[in-house]
Amino acid sequence: MKIIQYQSAVHSVKKENLIQLEKFLDRVAGEQADLIMVGEMFACPYDINNFLAYSEPQGGETFKFLSGLARKHRVYLAAGTVPEIDAEGKVYNTAYVFDRNGELAGKHRKVHLFDIDIPGGQYFKESTILSPGEQVTVFDSEFGKIGLCICFDIRFNEMFRIMTNLGARIILIPAAFNTTTGPIHWQLLLQARALDNQCFVAATSPARNKNASYQAWGHSLVVNPWGKIIGELDELPGHLTSRVDFQEVESVREQLPVVSNLRSDLYEVVYKPPV
Amino acid sequence: MKIIQYQSAVHSVKKENLIQLEKFLDRVAGEQADLIMVGEMFACPYDINNFLAYSEPQGGETFKFLSGLARKHRVYLAAGTVPEIDAEGKVYNTAYVFDRNGELAGKHRKVHLFDIDIPGGQYFKESTILSPGEQVTVFDSEFGKIGLCICFDIRFNEMFRIMTNLGARIILIPAAFNTTTGPIHWQLLLQARALDNQCFVAATSPARNKNASYQAWGHSLVVNPWGKIIGELDELPGHLTSRVDFQEVESVREQLPVVSNLRSDLYEVVYKPPV
Repeated sequence: MKIIQYQSAVHSVKKENLIQLEKFLDRVAGEQADLIMVGEMFACPYDINNFLAYSEPQGGETFKFLSGLARKHRVYLAAGTVPEIDAEGKVYNTAYVFDRNGELAGKHRKVHLFDIDIPGGQYFKESTILSPGEQVTVFDSEFGKIGLCICFDIRFNEMFRIMTNLGARIILIPAAFNTTTGPIHWQLLLQARALDNQCFVAATSPARNKNASYQAWGHSLVVNPWGKIIGELDELPGHLTSRVDFQEVESVREQLPVVSNLRSDLYEVVYKPPV
Repeated sequence: MKIIQYQSAVHSVKKENLIQLEKFLDRVAGEQADLIMVGEMFACPYDINNFLAYSEPQGGETFKFLSGLARKHRVYLAAGTVPEIDAEGKVYNTAYVFDRNGELAGKHRKVHLFDIDIPGGQYFKESTILSPGEQVTVFDSEFGKIGLCICFDIRFNEMFRIMTNLGARIILIPAAFNTTTGPIHWQLLLQARALDNQCFVAATSPARNKNASYQAWGHSLVVNPWGKIIGELDELPGHLTSRVDFQEVESVREQLPVVSNLRSDLYEVVYKPPV
């Protein structure tokens, strides 16, 4: 499975970001990637005041555009996240993944909203405008099961165990850490999630914009099931190409029996999705 | 709370290790530590062939000796681990913690036995001789609740969430990683456990012995609730002194609401201790 992560600069005009993505896909078309991935809120500057204004319902203009790109390039497109508005007017931070036919293969609404208040550091309260998702997401692909979650969800290892139990061999994470938490937590959490669950993790961020109110950490990366970073960008716009082989998941699990050694007689992560 | 971690060299004669610990406690008596901690199998070279031969029942000679040291020095003694044999002849990898009166404050039997088989790297199968523990351990102290687990248990984040749910503000981990997994996994796992659960983690290893069949990684360390290592040794014999303030647990949890933001409506780590 060949993955290209596109760490794009985010422009304030939504359409510019979509055209930028279209051009990128044209540019890398010769590389025959199986999956192309972009970052959290890649077409909406990450700011509470933008989420409602940039939101669209599922099936809206942006959705159709992204679906069309996937179909055109016959590629899985993990299209970062976009603000989604539902029929009741609730806004979600939503990740769509389209398959090679442009069909919706997976969808995740961010479950854990990002609220932080560090004296002298980061302040952000997503929960003032966004509604939380209500499920853990794993979807099928021609390569096997793929897990999907968003940014702050990273901090909740229960979600990752559930995705693992549901069969995920790689977990895709559109995200946008910041310059307070990024330097100390970004690599650490992503490596730990891969190691604990003995699976691949691919996390994609927008590039850092020094003029933005919220400065993304960038550093899109891929971690293997041994917890090792096999590729990583810096904070600038760019892209990262990686090859992952799901067989590695099986071999690491045999060598070091962690996932197979869970003591479900003694403890268990129980998943309680709403009916 | 002042902690001293003693990363001792392990001698093949059990009694020598106990006398060495006694001398160490005398030597640091002036430092007024609240808790002194030693490593996994600090008095029994880490080798499957030794566990039965070095084992003693709870309350045996070594147990009494360690209890006496705690009482003499009016200190909490997290006495690493020792092989414990029960009435049925089963052998466990057991951690005892004695309070300032020499009373048993906490006891943990390693739940996850260490089985590893890395081609060209580490091979070890604890499960061929040891029996697994059947509970997650949190005990009371004058400083608040303290969690306790052992080495390979580190890899199972469910145990840490249960300890956190049971109120642990610091988790003590006698351990002995090796030169295969140590360099890539030791810091990573311990930092992630502290960060995920927003608590302190203190992990103590024996020193590396280049002549031993199993070479411990050493690198005893303390991590704060922000996931930062606040003190760490190298692989040589030595000791590490740290001060930890449980107030930090509360302040980190307020700044970055992770533990308080667990979606127990959607997922939950269920603990099922045997009756």
